[in-house]
Parts: sequence; C-alpha cells; structure tokens
Amino acid sequence: MSDKLIIFDTTLRDGEQSPGASMTREEKLRIARQLERLKVDVIEAGFAASSNGDFEAVKSIADTIKESTVCSLARANDRDIARAAEALKGARSARIHTFIATSELHMEKKLRMTREQVLEQARLAVRFARNLCDNIEFSPEDGYRSDPDFLCRVLEAVIEEGATTLNIPDTVGYAIPELYGNFIRSLRERVPNSDKAIWSVHCHNDLGMAVANSLAGVKLGGARQVECTINGLGERAGNCSLEEVVMAVKTRRDYFGLEVGIDASQIVPASRMVAQTTGFVVQPNKAVVGANAFAHASGIHQDGVLKARDTYEIMRAEDVGWSANKIVLGKLSGRNAFKQRLQDLGVALESEAEVNAAFVRFKDLADRKSEIFDEDIIALVADESVTQEQEHYRLLALSQSSETGERPHAAVTFSAGHEEFRAEADGNGPVDASLKAIESRLQTGAELLLYSVNAITSGSTESQGEVTVRLQLGGRVVNGVGADPDIVVASAKAYLAALNKLHSKAERVAAQG
Amino acid sequence: MSDKLIIFDTTLRDGEQSPGASMTREEKLRIARQLERLKVDVIEAGFAASSNGDFEAVKSIADTIKESTVCSLARANDRDIARAAEALKGARSARIHTFIATSELHMEKKLRMTREQVLEQARLAVRFARNLCDNIEFSPEDGYRSDPDFLCRVLEAVIEEGATTLNIPDTVGYAIPELYGNFIRSLRERVPNSDKAIWSVHCHNDLGMAVANSLAGVKLGGARQVECTINGLGERAGNCSLEEVVMAVKTRRDYFGLEVGIDASQIVPASRMVAQTTGFVVQPNKAVVGANAFAHASGIHQDGVLKARDTYEIMRAEDVGWSANKIVLGKLSGRNAFKQRLQDLGVALESEAEVNAAFVRFKDLADRKSEIFDEDIIALVADESVTQEQEHYRLLALSQSSETGERPHAAVTFSAGHEEFRAEADGNGPVDASLKAIESRLQTGAELLLYSVNAITSGSTESQGEVTVRLQLGGRVVNGVGADPDIVVASAKAYLAALNKLHSKAERVAAQG
Repeated sequence: MSDKLIIFDTTLRDGEQSPGASMTREEKLRIARQLERLKVDVIEAGFAASSNGDFEAVKSIADTIKESTVCSLARANDRDIARAAEALKGARSARIHTFIATSELHMEKKLRMTREQVLEQARLAVRFARNLCDNIEFSPEDGYRSDPDFLCRVLEAVIEEGATTLNIPDTVGYAIPELYGNFIRSLRERVPNSDKAIWSVHCHNDLGMAVANSLAGVKLGGARQVECTINGLGERAGNCSLEEVVMAVKTRRDYFGLEVGIDASQIVPASRMVAQTTGFVVQPNKAVVGANAFAHASGIHQDGVLKARDTYEIMRAEDVGWSANKIVLGKLSGRNAFKQRLQDLGVALESEAEVNAAFVRFKDLADRKSEIFDEDIIALVADESVTQEQEHYRLLALSQSSETGERPHAAVTFSAGHEEFRAEADGNGPVDASLKAIESRLQTGAELLLYSVNAITSGSTESQGEVTVRLQLGGRVVNGVGADPDIVVASAKAYLAALNKLHSKAERVAAQG
Repeated sequence: MSDKLIIFDTTLRDGEQSPGASMTREEKLRIARQLERLKVDVIEAGFAASSNGDFEAVKSIADTIKESTVCSLARANDRDIARAAEALKGARSARIHTFIATSELHMEKKLRMTREQVLEQARLAVRFARNLCDNIEFSPEDGYRSDPDFLCRVLEAVIEEGATTLNIPDTVGYAIPELYGNFIRSLRERVPNSDKAIWSVHCHNDLGMAVANSLAGVKLGGARQVECTINGLGERAGNCSLEEVVMAVKTRRDYFGLEVGIDASQIVPASRMVAQTTGFVVQPNKAVVGANAFAHASGIHQDGVLKARDTYEIMRAEDVGWSANKIVLGKLSGRNAFKQRLQDLGVALESEAEVNAAFVRFKDLADRKSEIFDEDIIALVADESVTQEQEHYRLLALSQSSETGERPHAAVTFSAGHEEFRAEADGNGPVDASLKAIESRLQTGAELLLYSVNAITSGSTESQGEVTVRLQLGGRVVNGVGADPDIVVASAKAYLAALNKLHSKAERVAAQG
C-alpha cells in the first residue's frame, strides 16, 4: 500500500456549511490560494449546483489553482454532476465528488427511497460522472451508521463504475477510533476490487474524536485520504482539523510511517486567514493553532523548558508557522512594497484599481497605527474585497460619545445603494447606539446572534479591533466582519457587512457529508 | 472490574496553570461549587504548597464541598505533602496527589536525579502521605515517555506504600489511542498487585487526541479514572475535556459499558462559568459546549433534522444544559428574587454586605438592560467578587468620544488604594484612548497580549460586553475580565482587573502533570 497520505481539505465546502461561515467568491479564492501554498492535495472548493454564487466560486478556483486538485461536491444526480463538471472545466486537475445517503435512517426519513433505488442511483451517478471526469470520489452519506452488507454492495457497484476514491463519512460524529478503524478495514476486506480505489475518511467532531477516528481509519483501516478543514471548521462541532491530523502524522512518523505533502509552515497563516474570513475564532487552548498551543515559546518562564526544550515540547512553534509578530510595513512604505507584501501573503487583487483602493486604505491605517503587521494587511484587504463586491451598504462617517451617568449616543452616516442616510440613536453603550442608529433607519429586523471582538495583533493597545457580528433573518445566518483601530467603527462596519451578505446572497441547497 | 468511571476534574489545578488562567480564591470556590453540582467524583482544587493564595483556595474548597472528594497536588516531598494535608483538613473526603517525573529526559534535565533517587523519593513520599490521608494518588510525570521497566518498579513500590490511585500522564500530549491504551494495559499486567489501586489516565491535547487517548486508556487499558478539565482548559493545547469524555461514555454506552456519575445538564453552565471566569473563550465549533455544537437546535433550517431528529443528532442539546436564553430577572425583581437566583446558580456570596453590593449593581444594570439573563448575573457577581477582594484599582468614571476624521479621546477617573486619579489621553480608538489614559498615570509597563470581547447573551444588541484583557509584566501573565453594557467601560474595568491581579498575586511554583 502507498505510504503517501492524501490531504483533502473541505474548508470551502463542509467548513463553509457552518451557520454563519458562508463566504464570498473572493474570500473562497483567497483561501484556496492559501491551501495551494499549504500544498493540500485536493481542495474541495464548494458545491457547484447549490447556488450560482457557489458555481462561480468553484469555477474561479478551478481556473486559478494549479498545484492542487480542485473538487466540487454533487448529489448523485445528473444535473448536479453536470454543473460540477462545468464549473471544473478550467481545472488543471479536477475531481467530482458525488454522494448519496446509505443509512436506513437517512434513506427512509430524508431521501424516502428504498435500498435498491439508492444503489441504482449511486451506480448511475458514478457512471455519468465518469464520462465527464476521470477522477471520481463517491461518499455514502452517514456511511458509518449504514448496514455493512448493503454498504458493501453500493461500494462494489461504484468501483465497477469507475469511482477512484471511496470516502466513508462518520456524518454525525458517532465513531470511536477502534470501531471506525475496524469498520474501514472490514469494508476494504469484503468489497471486491477494493484495491482499485483509494479509501478515504471523513469524520465529524461531535464527541471530540474526529482526529483520532480519522487516524484509526488510516492506521487500522488502511485509508490513504483524510478529509479535513482548517481550524476544524464545520457544522456543529466541526470536522477533523487539518493542522492536528497533519502534525500527528508528522510528529508520530514512527507509528504511522506515512508521508504528507503539506508545508506545515503555512498552517498558522492558513488558520488566521480562515478565522478572520469567517469570524469563527480559534480558542486559545486549540491544538497547534491556538494562541496558547506553544505558550512556552511565548516568553512564559518555565523551568523545565529552559533546561531542555524537549521536556515539554513535541513540536516546534516555528515549524507550523508561528513567528513573532513581524513589523512588515509602516507609514513610509510605498505602493510597490505594499504590492509585494500582498503577493507574499498570497493575496491577489484582481485589478490595479483594487490595488490602488487597498493602498489608500493602507496609508489611512498607517497614519493611525505605527506598526502594520501581516494580519492588519489581511484584514484590510478582506474588508476591501467584501466592500468591492457587495457595496450596497457602506459606512461613511460615525461619531459617538459616552460618559458615566449619561446615555451613550451615536450618529452614523452610511450609504445604501445610491442613497445616503444619517441616523442617530441612544444605546446601552456606544456600539449598541451605533447599531441601533443603523437599524432605526433600515428596519431590517435582523436578530443579533453573536458579537465578538478580537485584537488583530497583540503587544500593543494600538491594535486594530476585528469585530464579528452574526445576524439571523428569516432562517438565514450570516457573519459580517469589520476591522478598524476604533472598535465602534469596526462594529458598525461589521454590522453593515453582515447586512450586505443578507442583501446579496440567495439561499442555498444544504448538503451534508 | 468496576463499571464505574471516576471523573477527576483538574480545572482548578492543571487548568489554572494555563498562562493567564489564574483565579482568585473566590473564583475557584465558585467553580468548585459548580463542579460539585455537576457531580464530579474528585475535584483537584489546587497545589497547596505552590503559594499561600492557593493554600487558602484549597482550604476553603475543602471546607465547603461535601459531595465530591477534594484533592491537592503535592510534589514528592514532605513539605509539599504536609501543606496539602493541612489545607485538606476540613474536607469530608480528601485525597493527596503526589507526583515525580520518571522519564529519562525529565529526571536528567529537570530533576537532575538518578533513577534510584527518584524511586526512593516516590516511595518515601507515598509512605509519608499515607500517614496523613488514606486516599493517595501517585503520578509518574511524563509517564508515557518513561522506560516501562523502570516505571513498573516505581509503580510497584508506591502500591506497596499504599497508593490507592495510579495515574499515568501523557504530559506532553504525544500519545496515540492504540499505543496509550496498550501501554496502560501492559503496566497493569506487569505490576504486581496492580489490582490494589485504581488506574487513571491524564492526557494532554497537543495532537488533538486527548479524549480518544483517555478513552483508549479506559477501554483497552482498564483505567477507571479520567482526569479532565471543563472546556479542555490547560497548558498549551489543554487537557482532555470533561464534557467530551463524559458525553462519549454516555452516548456510546453500547461500547464502553461504563457508568459515570456526572449530571450532564450542568455541563453548559459549568462551561460558561469557567469561560467567563478565566477569559478563555470557547470556540463555536467546540464539541458539546461550543455555540454551534447543536446548531440544528438553534433555529437553522435543516431539511433532514426537520424530518427526523436522529438523522444528524446523536445527543440532545437539553441533556447537556443548553436552553434557550431565559429571562430570569428584570427591573422589578426584588432583593429576595435576586438572592434566590444567586442560590440557584450556586453563587454563594459570603456576607449580607456582599449580597447588598451585588444587588445595587444588579439594579443599576437592570436600569440599562431590560432583560437580565443568568449569564448577566454570573458576570455581575464575578465582577463584584473580584472587586471586593482586590480593590486596589477601581474605575470611578469614564467619558469618551470619537468622530470620523478626529482622534478619539477618553478621560478616566479611577482609584488606586486611597488615592483618586483622573487622566486623559488620545488613542486609535476609544478603548485604546481609555487604556492609554490609565497607563499614562500608572506607568506599569504591562504589555497587552490579548484583547477580546464577547457578548454575554445573544439575541439583542443590548447585551453586556464581556472584555478579557491579558497582560504580561516581568514574566507573569494575568487575565482581567470586565463586563458592562458599554464596551469601553468594560474594557477599562478589565484592564484595571488585570492590573489588580498583577498587583496582588505572588508568583507561584509551576507544576506539571
């Protein structure tokens, strides 16, 4: 069996399905470029048939990415598969990933189909897909809770039809490493011609064991592809986290004996980009990418560590891309230095006009903040590209004040389409007053589900605040992110960004896996 | 072998060792009460010999908690063990947990002791402890990386001396479930009289597998105690998370066949209390206790879930204590209702004066915020008890304003001891200006490592903001937490709370496990 472990990243598909994590085309493209730099083998770019927006996102990633295989999800029907193939047309290396549920519960309650119908549909879907693309992955949704006899028949059929990867999802995060590993092994032993396909694992983290389950599928089960996401992003408790699974295989090479192609030094930049783009924070005690994961490395006195680093460290912070905050640019940096830095960060703006607009914002920020870090630049262009794309609402000016014993007050000027509005309101605090001012004018009725702020860089109170606002309206949930050295301004930007997403995005078809 | 799995919570000891997570006596006592309500079997309350503050914390927990065993950590020497025994004197059920490193690396580089010296010291420590307490746990630190032959000799010796629990830590988070489970099993098979002690697992999460490793130690290895923390709090990537390990054993009883005594409905309240007290946020995609862990339950349209709940859910949100935000109190609630709610929440204020002070703050909050949730009350009393205890710095008044195109400005009035100061400053934003105003007066030189804000309750922009500020000064790291409907005020409170901690807390002896 091959000793290469294929890393299949689904941040842009399964990760994006987290309530509030939906991304724009530009955001997905920027993350895809970072995944390519990370040397991910396969990037699942989206679910082309789910919406026109996601079709365009998959297409632009397929047209751009050269080093990784680009994949689109598709339900097991001709229309979905044809849309996926069309979106992937420009890819140097393409994969179609088609799925249908095989557990009794899902077939009966969700699909309302019999076993024979599901088997036939899986077979036909793979046959159809194989005529459009020679790289076909098939997933039996809720596979781990499926009847093994029936599952074996389905898998045998799709191998016959030419599926090249067989992925066995633990859709609801119910597995235990030993059981899941043995389940994969037994399928591989029982299904005829199982060696004609690469076996893959896809685990959810509901019981906190997605990484261990995935690795048991590899070690005990013989799988050679792991599906995972940056920061473990994903519905509910998320997916197997890329950074953990990769570092486990690298750190315990003695046990796994496998190669992964990942450039680990790109892990922390990828983690930050995904956190900043989606507004899903990473907790400090998160393995590998949490702020405390290498706390010994960040100046904390620790007797043992001073005497010998190995006493408490099994990985090196530098190896996964942690570096001290580096001052990259300042007030005197010119347009070329800025453009070069964007390139180094993998941010490709689409036109010179966009670079110019970003540079103006950069100079504006540098006037207010003496040290500009990579994180500041990423936040700035993230902000920029969202604004470029969906500029229905835009903040023009804000003034606010609060004083002990008096009610905070804010006045906000913003544009909506071609109109300009000014609105004032009182509130419990200056943020509340600002958001109420906007809402008093727009009357959207959106419900605020979450509000959080993180400083983009540490080490100084001058840091920009990055605010995430999660809104719910009519069953849809969106996150808006805004960054500014002034937290009240950042909040108003984030609120308008979320309203922009509500304004522009059509509802999508939901997929699971 | 017993089918009861002992849950040993070390949030207050190993969790508290996370840089910035150090807690006051009152905070530890409040969390201990919640752990008792959670029906944790053993509460590791601290490391009595590490500081006078921690001695007092362990003592007050030992004097208060009735339903759980209370434990103190102690290095393997008479002084530490005597201090632990003294702190635990008032406990209804007490345990001393003593440890010494047994890996070559730790013995050579950290302890600078030979194998025979370590063996002898372990033996003498357990003998000494056993004379003071009949419930003795022994941990060979870095046990998983220790030479098994030597480790067996140490474990045999401490059983002879009367150790009742043997805990095998994976101190650096290096283990893999299969290997760790087999390691525990082989120790149990090889050590004479191994059945005279209960075996315990203690895993760190550096590779994301702490929960799976712990459970492999139980299932494959035969351990019957798991050491864990709320939210997986702990140094670096943290410890095994209590909520995940408990829910895995409950959800997969078919596989584990074990009983746990935990009242799962207290899990989410415990998680929130620990997050609010330490300022360590829980990421949305955290299993069991993350805001998205049961996203289907929070109004997100999901076709499958509507048709049959089991299609995507293996646990019920209600079972782990998630409930819709409940309005518990409002403007018209009286002192008795407030006091009753405090009792229901397990918050015991020490005197009527404290209840009165908290009630005044409650009324003040209710004037500004129409709906008061449990989380608001917890934040309010958390704020109160910190202020009560360490009131060196206290915020008296704050006014600030910002306006597009002008530099934000703040004026802060605060007390330091018996003096009152007023200071003004400009800044990049109102928060920056406020903190700079304080710093301009105090000149502490503290470095801001982290700044974050979370809304305490969702569903309304009226929520209080809870700000966490992490400061570093002279190698020490502290978190300060402040809550207020005005985010700028909350930030100034958090900053002063962190300065109070820097002002009052002596440095501690570091322990690992």
